[in-house]
Amino acid sequence: MSIKVGIVGATGYTGVELLRLLAGHPGVELAVATSRELAGKPVAGLFQSLRGRVGLAFVPPEVAALKACDAVFFATPNGTAMTMAAELLDAGVRVIDLSADFRLRDTAEWRRWYGMEHACPGLLPQAVYGLPEVNRGALREARLVANPGCYPTAVQLGFLPLLENGLVDPARLIADAKSGASGAGRKAEIGLLYGEVAESFKAYGVDGHRHLPEIRQGLVAAAGADVGLTFVPHLTPMIRGIHATLYAERTDGGDLRDLHAVYAARYADEPFVDVMEPGLMPETRGVKGSNVCRLSVFCPQGGRTVVVLSVIDNLVKGAAGQAVQNFNIMFGFDERAGLDAIALQP
Amino acid sequence: MSIKVGIVGATGYTGVELLRLLAGHPGVELAVATSRELAGKPVAGLFQSLRGRVGLAFVPPEVAALKACDAVFFATPNGTAMTMAAELLDAGVRVIDLSADFRLRDTAEWRRWYGMEHACPGLLPQAVYGLPEVNRGALREARLVANPGCYPTAVQLGFLPLLENGLVDPARLIADAKSGASGAGRKAEIGLLYGEVAESFKAYGVDGHRHLPEIRQGLVAAAGADVGLTFVPHLTPMIRGIHATLYAERTDGGDLRDLHAVYAARYADEPFVDVMEPGLMPETRGVKGSNVCRLSVFCPQGGRTVVVLSVIDNLVKGAAGQAVQNFNIMFGFDERAGLDAIALQP
Amino acid sequence: MSIKVGIVGATGYTGVELLRLLAGHPGVELAVATSRELAGKPVAGLFQSLRGRVGLAFVPPEVAALKACDAVFFATPNGTAMTMAAELLDAGVRVIDLSADFRLRDTAEWRRWYGMEHACPGLLPQAVYGLPEVNRGALREARLVANPGCYPTAVQLGFLPLLENGLVDPARLIADAKSGASGAGRKAEIGLLYGEVAESFKAYGVDGHRHLPEIRQGLVAAAGADVGLTFVPHLTPMIRGIHATLYAERTDGGDLRDLHAVYAARYADEPFVDVMEPGLMPETRGVKGSNVCRLSVFCPQGGRTVVVLSVIDNLVKGAAGQAVQNFNIMFGFDERAGLDAIALQP
Amino acid sequence: MSIKVGIVGATGYTGVELLRLLAGHPGVELAVATSRELAGKPVAGLFQSLRGRVGLAFVPPEVAALKACDAVFFATPNGTAMTMAAELLDAGVRVIDLSADFRLRDTAEWRRWYGMEHACPGLLPQAVYGLPEVNRGALREARLVANPGCYPTAVQLGFLPLLENGLVDPARLIADAKSGASGAGRKAEIGLLYGEVAESFKAYGVDGHRHLPEIRQGLVAAAGADVGLTFVPHLTPMIRGIHATLYAERTDGGDLRDLHAVYAARYADEPFVDVMEPGLMPETRGVKGSNVCRLSVFCPQGGRTVVVLSVIDNLVKGAAGQAVQNFNIMFGFDERAGLDAIALQP
Repeated sequence: MSIKVGIVGATGYTGVELLRLLAGHPGVELAVATSRELAGKPVAGLFQSLRGRVGLAFVPPEVAALKACDAVFFATPNGTAMTMAAELLDAGVRVIDLSADFRLRDTAEWRRWYGMEHACPGLLPQAVYGLPEVNRGALREARLVANPGCYPTAVQLGFLPLLENGLVDPARLIADAKSGASGAGRKAEIGLLYGEVAESFKAYGVDGHRHLPEIRQGLVAAAGADVGLTFVPHLTPMIRGIHATLYAERTDGGDLRDLHAVYAARYADEPFVDVMEPGLMPETRGVKGSNVCRLSVFCPQGGRTVVVLSVIDNLVKGAAGQAVQNFNIMFGFDERAGLDAIALQP
Repeated sequence: MSIKVGIVGATGYTGVELLRLLAGHPGVELAVATSRELAGKPVAGLFQSLRGRVGLAFVPPEVAALKACDAVFFATPNGTAMTMAAELLDAGVRVIDLSADFRLRDTAEWRRWYGMEHACPGLLPQAVYGLPEVNRGALREARLVANPGCYPTAVQLGFLPLLENGLVDPARLIADAKSGASGAGRKAEIGLLYGEVAESFKAYGVDGHRHLPEIRQGLVAAAGADVGLTFVPHLTPMIRGIHATLYAERTDGGDLRDLHAVYAARYADEPFVDVMEPGLMPETRGVKGSNVCRLSVFCPQGGRTVVVLSVIDNLVKGAAGQAVQNFNIMFGFDERAGLDAIALQP
Repeated sequence: MSIKVGIVGATGYTGVELLRLLAGHPGVELAVATSRELAGKPVAGLFQSLRGRVGLAFVPPEVAALKACDAVFFATPNGTAMTMAAELLDAGVRVIDLSADFRLRDTAEWRRWYGMEHACPGLLPQAVYGLPEVNRGALREARLVANPGCYPTAVQLGFLPLLENGLVDPARLIADAKSGASGAGRKAEIGLLYGEVAESFKAYGVDGHRHLPEIRQGLVAAAGADVGLTFVPHLTPMIRGIHATLYAERTDGGDLRDLHAVYAARYADEPFVDVMEPGLMPETRGVKGSNVCRLSVFCPQGGRTVVVLSVIDNLVKGAAGQAVQNFNIMFGFDERAGLDAIALQP
Repeated sequence: MSIKVGIVGATGYTGVELLRLLAGHPGVELAVATSRELAGKPVAGLFQSLRGRVGLAFVPPEVAALKACDAVFFATPNGTAMTMAAELLDAGVRVIDLSADFRLRDTAEWRRWYGMEHACPGLLPQAVYGLPEVNRGALREARLVANPGCYPTAVQLGFLPLLENGLVDPARLIADAKSGASGAGRKAEIGLLYGEVAESFKAYGVDGHRHLPEIRQGLVAAAGADVGLTFVPHLTPMIRGIHATLYAERTDGGDLRDLHAVYAARYADEPFVDVMEPGLMPETRGVKGSNVCRLSVFCPQGGRTVVVLSVIDNLVKGAAGQAVQNFNIMFGFDERAGLDAIALQP
């Protein structure tokens, strides 16, 4: 079986990562890659890594060309997919949107955080939030998938076992998250220059980051109750990787051994979640280029505070890899298809 | 006035930073730099940056040579200063120890965290903890200074205004701290190689880091009460810099404006603490090579959680710079002497 | 077909890269990985990237265990393979040595550069130098392969078309090569620390680097004449990648177009050599994690000086990947087996 | 004495470096810093490093404000200084231009490489090329200084002793130069992003870089003859630093000892050129933040090829520091004033 696939916005970091993964996917025919600016130019001319591996030329981002695909991935800035998705869905194309357009159920929330009206609120009910560890069943039937953000993936996978099992106070959650620079995208901005990012570390968006409502939405669903979450993202001088350090306050009387068992059980059948043995700590490089989320849980000094460490590659499990995982679920492939590369370490 | 100064253990990152700062200090004569391995070799042969600026050759670390100094800095591994300090103090030499030997008041705590008996508990009562923002008065008369650790400096300066003023619940403090690789010292260890540190981020010591009791000791003193502190250090792929992200739960009814005023007032006269205007966020590169601690305080979404951002250069305000600041206080220099370099940005 | 494979010295950067590539090779059964220090410990405990992918535990480096393999890779320091190879070969095991032990034909040269007597000069005649682009035929029958060094791979592939075709003065060759830090191996040395390598650039071994005689041996063979080569290696602050900038003086009257055609023809059938179109310049990141050598040739200002740019990933085409390529040739696999991953960019 | 100084274009990397150096200069009053976009905003709001050290607000780049200065530095893109210099000079202001506007004597050459007509060729005769090691005498009287480019500084200082003494074949010079990313300026370009620069190495401008004619002009003057120069610049993943590796072919019969003596003699009285003892190799980090050019000379394998290693900090000796050195010479300060900081290592 070979599925015809299109990528809209194939010149950013998420786009090239989709190209890397899909070019090596055994059941995919890369049919369309769009770029308004580079239309007509070979895709491999932009990314040397794709020389000899991707023969496509960029085409303009027009629905007509994309309709011939079985599946279309949007690796576009927020606000683009919502203007093109309806027509594609009508044509029978399945859509996986890596932007934020279909992630929030609440359009008022969306407007508030993204600063624009939602263009197709009518599609939201059928959009499935693409976190396989939560929505695998619905994803099998999904025609429109809202692929999660990078921080939301790392933070939700880290908190879920605690909240689903009511082991912590949902009003006192803290997510201190650190991301590599590729998380900000491939945009010509001074703040993203090597000379600005290298050899420095900073927090940003402390007063409110767009991923906050997305994370909260997921945690509320897991907790079955409102949650109080403080989310502080930071920029780390590395290309790839997210490390989320999560803090919560235990309300049960168990010990670390019990906690670890809860995590191990929760993710026992997950192909891409790796719960480490007690005492081990994950490194972001251990998942560089791979679709794994690696977790570890601690109760420092035997106190009430639970510390969860959660690492992903923001471009893979935090974006393109998770999108391919969702694609695999939607089209009946082995969930690992195209995602079996071992992380590049060192 | 020219003070004769010696440095014990001048081949590590803290040692070369002391050399850099003291070579440029207007009131200092660099008299002795010790290294057992490199005795007889020129100091500038080890660090090209010192060529033409430091004419000394290393000598073995013997008390006899150091007794001729007015002040001796220990930039040695833990456990060395406590074996040499008494003899130097008896000879009238003032001692500034950058290791942990004299930081903890409680020798049982010391034994537990550092794995050895304290060699001179009798000196502990006269050791002054060298955080000028807390102990400036005592430092003026000090003969033995315990220079604070890097994490403890960043964390304490960040939490002090909250605890001294009883604005937060002292039982629920979280310090999520990130350090550059130089914080681990200049040791031949595989875990510190470029190939292991670059392009990766990880937590370490989650179950308990040696700086925890030192921080707790300082916070307890500030709060006048016991504190509950969760401290998670992380390794960041950069040479210099610490970024501490601090979380606490407010118990007062004030707003951010009030909080900011508390910070501004607390550090109004401090030459090396810079409280940023509300909304601004510090970057570690903004203090690279300088003795500044830069702070910012937030109440995200107007909630009860206070977030404090605190950045220092771990080798300067977190080690050698603070040691020179203490030296300046002890010897009556302007507190800024030798410490007026502007951070190297970019 | 499944070939039983052993790796001696599996804890270094070359070793883990072999593990990464061989774990994903469709025709390989990873049977043995040795480490004296870590014998009994799981391989995946050392490298998080291998968790869930390599189930082996390390065993001591003993010939007995290795004899059960069909092929053994040596990723050991120089001087080890030459003490174990004979016994393995006698037992019918094919040997691919990634160290320098069998690279130089001339044992006097070997002694001079490596500071020890060669332990088994009798094996040298049967050792095939594992540069497939030169020795593919011999490699098919080889039982003992001397896998080339990283610099020698990049430099030889860059110079070969010029020398084989007599287009330049062989007495005036310059190779200015830059390597990432992983090229120095995973050794506990201060000079390799993050704090020493990051944000700095330096030449080393200007007076003579061990790869010089190996490169010269290959270039002499290509030129059919003696060569004069100046080789200056440099350390670059990155984990992976070699960029060789090669200079030679043209003796023919052709132009750049002709030169490019020579390169394109020379490597037309090579699966892992990519000659760029005139005017394009390769980046090391474009081959990160892949087995490609990417070349570009220039005649700046239309002068007599030819400039060749040659990039590889030092751990892949410069070591483990080339070893797997040789293994594929020796065992009749598709030369690309296990080597089809696209470079990780960014 | 306090000289009133203005900086035009103070928001780039060269501009902030001028601010850093001039804010610490004992004889300077920072009077004007211009930025069209940020006019009215505090300078320290852009660069946290300047908080508490520079009280200025940006003003628009208008000649009127600048006329009140004694000296004006241009840290602007090419093409700006040449439109403002005449008026300032007429008003008695001395001008130090860090851009390329006044570096080339030949306006045709300038047009060819910079793509525009020169706006004030009449000023060129009075412009002094600001390489103090060559033009110190003329700089004392200069009213208009063309501050050298970064590559030209490193390459000329490395080649001068060879060419001035006729020790090498001037027709066969090769300069293989590597620069940190700040050399490209603080521009919003995708190619300069952290995600594009980090962990990669590449050549650029192989067919011809704008610094080529500037270097050639200086080398021709030193040689008193035409020169053949191949210049290949490379981008290195670090913020600051240039490492030029220079190759030439000896025409004399001397040995390395003689060569070293020539270098030592040539720069004996230079405050900012450090010739290393034979066998030592400079690192760029050894000059990070300092105005030093550090040189080393080799004759590998005793052959005819001379290899010179030359390192500078591109923002200091390659730009702002050299500009301050020129300023010191012009205004009769000690040449080291404001330039005595020791390099930040690590």
